[in-house]
Amino acid sequence: MRDVAIIGVGMMKWGELWEKSLRTIFVETALAAIDDAGIDHLDAMYIGCMSSGLFVGQEHLGSLLADYLGQKPIPAARVESACASGGLALRQGFIDVASGMNDFVLVGGIEKMTDLNANEVTYALGTAADQEYEGYHGITFPGLYALIARAHMEKYGTTREQLAMVAVKNHDNGALNPLAQYPFKITVEAVLNSPLVADPLRVLDCSPITDGAAAVILAPVEVAKKLNKPIVKIIGSGHATDSIALAHREDITWLEAVYQSARKALAMAGKKIEDIDVFEVHDCFTIAEICIIEALGLVEKGKGGQAVEAGLTRIDGPFPVNPSGGLKAKGHPVGATGVAQAVEIVKQLRGEAGRRQVKGARLGLTQNMGGTGGSSVVHIFAAE
Amino acid sequence: MRDVAIIGVGMMKWGELWEKSLRTIFVETALAAIDDAGIDHLDAMYIGCMSSGLFVGQEHLGSLLADYLGQKPIPAARVESACASGGLALRQGFIDVASGMNDFVLVGGIEKMTDLNANEVTYALGTAADQEYEGYHGITFPGLYALIARAHMEKYGTTREQLAMVAVKNHDNGALNPLAQYPFKITVEAVLNSPLVADPLRVLDCSPITDGAAAVILAPVEVAKKLNKPIVKIIGSGHATDSIALAHREDITWLEAVYQSARKALAMAGKKIEDIDVFEVHDCFTIAEICIIEALGLVEKGKGGQAVEAGLTRIDGPFPVNPSGGLKAKGHPVGATGVAQAVEIVKQLRGEAGRRQVKGARLGLTQNMGGTGGSSVVHIFAAE
Repeated sequence: MRDVAIIGVGMMKWGELWEKSLRTIFVETALAAIDDAGIDHLDAMYIGCMSSGLFVGQEHLGSLLADYLGQKPIPAARVESACASGGLALRQGFIDVASGMNDFVLVGGIEKMTDLNANEVTYALGTAADQEYEGYHGITFPGLYALIARAHMEKYGTTREQLAMVAVKNHDNGALNPLAQYPFKITVEAVLNSPLVADPLRVLDCSPITDGAAAVILAPVEVAKKLNKPIVKIIGSGHATDSIALAHREDITWLEAVYQSARKALAMAGKKIEDIDVFEVHDCFTIAEICIIEALGLVEKGKGGQAVEAGLTRIDGPFPVNPSGGLKAKGHPVGATGVAQAVEIVKQLRGEAGRRQVKGARLGLTQNMGGTGGSSVVHIFAAE
Repeated sequence: MRDVAIIGVGMMKWGELWEKSLRTIFVETALAAIDDAGIDHLDAMYIGCMSSGLFVGQEHLGSLLADYLGQKPIPAARVESACASGGLALRQGFIDVASGMNDFVLVGGIEKMTDLNANEVTYALGTAADQEYEGYHGITFPGLYALIARAHMEKYGTTREQLAMVAVKNHDNGALNPLAQYPFKITVEAVLNSPLVADPLRVLDCSPITDGAAAVILAPVEVAKKLNKPIVKIIGSGHATDSIALAHREDITWLEAVYQSARKALAMAGKKIEDIDVFEVHDCFTIAEICIIEALGLVEKGKGGQAVEAGLTRIDGPFPVNPSGGLKAKGHPVGATGVAQAVEIVKQLRGEAGRRQVKGARLGLTQNMGGTGGSSVVHIFAAE
C-alpha cells in the first residue's frame, strides 16, 4: 500500500443555509479544497452523505456533484454509514489512493438538513437506528442517547453537571472557530436550564441541525512531496461495526465499535493513544463524548465525566478534544462531520488553527460515529 | 495492486418477497455466497443499495447487515450510485482487496422495493434523476427513457419492433433462469399490445419492481489458489460519471459514461471488446440495452436495433447479451442488479449456467448503470 497524504482542505461557514442548494454548498467547499491543494485536476471523488434521499429527495449524489464540480467523467462514489458517512468516505479515499488506483482524490462530506421541518429531520436521522426494533417503538436519537446517559450516571456516578461541561468546553472552543454554526460560549447553568428533550438530556446537550460540507484532497505522499506544500500524512485507518440496536448490546455505556476502530487505526499507525496530541471526536450528544474518550482508552471506563470536569480535554489540557467546537458548537451536517474533523486536524497539524491551536501538535486523531455507535471510523494523522 | 478473484457467489429467487424483511433477504443470500466460497470468516463487507432510506426507512445499512450476518465488528460500507450501486460496491471491494487492506471481502447488493406502492417506488427511483432540473417538472424514469427511445428512432430509424425484440430475447433467456422474477417467454405482439407507460415505451419494455439480493466473495488470487476452488479473476474495473440530467447532454442517444467506463476497464484488462465472450448489461428499459451495446462498441452508433433484430445478441449469437434474462426478466432490485450481473458472469465462466450456458465462455463483461447513464460501472472477468 502507498503512503497517503492530505494536501488540501476546504470548509465554509456552517448553519441554516436556506439560500443555497446542496450542490452549491458542495461546489463552493470542494473548490476551496482544490485551491488549497493547488492542483489542476482530480482523478476520483468520494462523497460521504447519510441521507440526501430523505433530506432533499436526491440520490445518485456522486455523479451529480462530480458534474457540478466540472469533473465528469471521473469516478465518483457516494458512501453511507449514517453519521459516520464522512469518516467512511475518507477511509474509502485513503484505500483508493493507497491501492494505486488513483492519485488525486477528493473526499467530500455533505448534508443539507434544514429544508425539512424538525419532525421530518428526526425521522430521517432515526433511520440510523434499527427501524424494526427501535424506530418501530417510536424512540428517536435523543431518547436512545438519554438511555445511555441515564445508565452511565447510574453505573458510574456521572453527574448532570459533567454532561453540561462537555457542551460548555466545546462552545468555549467553537467560539474561536469562525466557521462554526454557533460560535459563542455557554454556561453550565444555561445547559441545565435549557428545555428538556429526553431526560436527562436537554437542548444544549444536543448537536444542532445543520447544512454544510467539508472536503479534503488526498494524494500519494511521493506525489505530494513534489508540490512543495505542507503535508499531513494519514498513518492509520480503522473502521468497525456493532449492533445498531442498543437492545442487542451487552453494555450500552460501552462503545465497542469505537474501541475496535481505534485499536485498528493505532495498530496500523504504530502508535499508542497517549502519543496523540489532538482529538476530534463525535459529540453528537454530551454523553457521547464521555463514552468515546473512555472507549478510546484516554481514561478508564466510567471516568469520562470526571476527566471533563478536571479539564483534561480542554485545548490546554493533556488530551485536547474537539478544539474545533465539535459537533455541538461547530454544527453537525451529518455526512459532512467526519470530513470536517479531518479538516480541523490538518489545520492543527499545520499550525494554522489560530486562537484554538493546540500547541506543538504533531499527531492527531479523528473519531466519527454512526447512530449510537453501530459504526465508528478512526483515522490517525501525522505532521510531516 | 494485487490480483483479485471471485471465489463464491450467492443469489436466491427474486420477486415480490413480502414475507421477508430486507435483512433476511440479505442474510440468506450472503450465506449462500459464503458457503459457495467455503470460507470461515470475512474481513470486510461492501453493500450496494440505492435507497433503503426511501424504500424501507432504514439507513446505516452496512452495520445492520454485518451484525445480522454475525460479522460485527468487521468494517462494512454501504455505497450508492443509484441503480449502479451494486456495480460500485463490486468496484470498491475490488479496490479494497487489490490494495492489500483486506483478504476476504463480501460484496452484496440489495433492494427491498415492494413494501411501497407503485407511486412511492416511482418517486424513490426518481431521486436518481436530477431533482432540481428533471424531478421538479414531474418527469419520471419511463418518461426520460421514452425521450431517449423517441430520439433514437428519429435519428437512426430504430423501430418499435426492434425495441420489443430486446424484451423478447431477454425473456427467452430468463425462461432458462429459475431465479428470475419472470421466468417465461413473451412475444413481440405481447410487448406491442401491453399498456402504454410513456410513449413509445410499454409495460413490457420496462424492467419490473423487485425485492432481491446478490452476493460475491472476493479474495486475492494468491490466497484463492490455495482453496482449490474454481477461480474467476476480475481483470478490469472502470467507473465513469456523466450529467445525471438529460438536458445537460449533447446527444441523449449516446451514453458517454458507458463508453468511458468500458474504455477504462478494457484498458486495465488489456483486452478489446471483441475479445469478450459474454455480456450482462443494464437493460432497465429496452432502449437502454440498444444504447449500451452501441456505447460498448459492439456495434456502430445507431445500429443497436438492427443488431438485436439480426439475433447478434442471443445466447448463440456472436456477442451474447444478458443470458441471465437481464433486468427485464430476472428482475431489477436496483442496488442488487450490479452484483447479480457478476454472479451470472461467474456462473458462465465456471460453465455452471445450465441451459443458458454460453458455450466456451472464457471472458465476460458486466455493465451496470445509474439513472439514464449518469453513472456506469464496467468489470471484465476471466476464467482461470
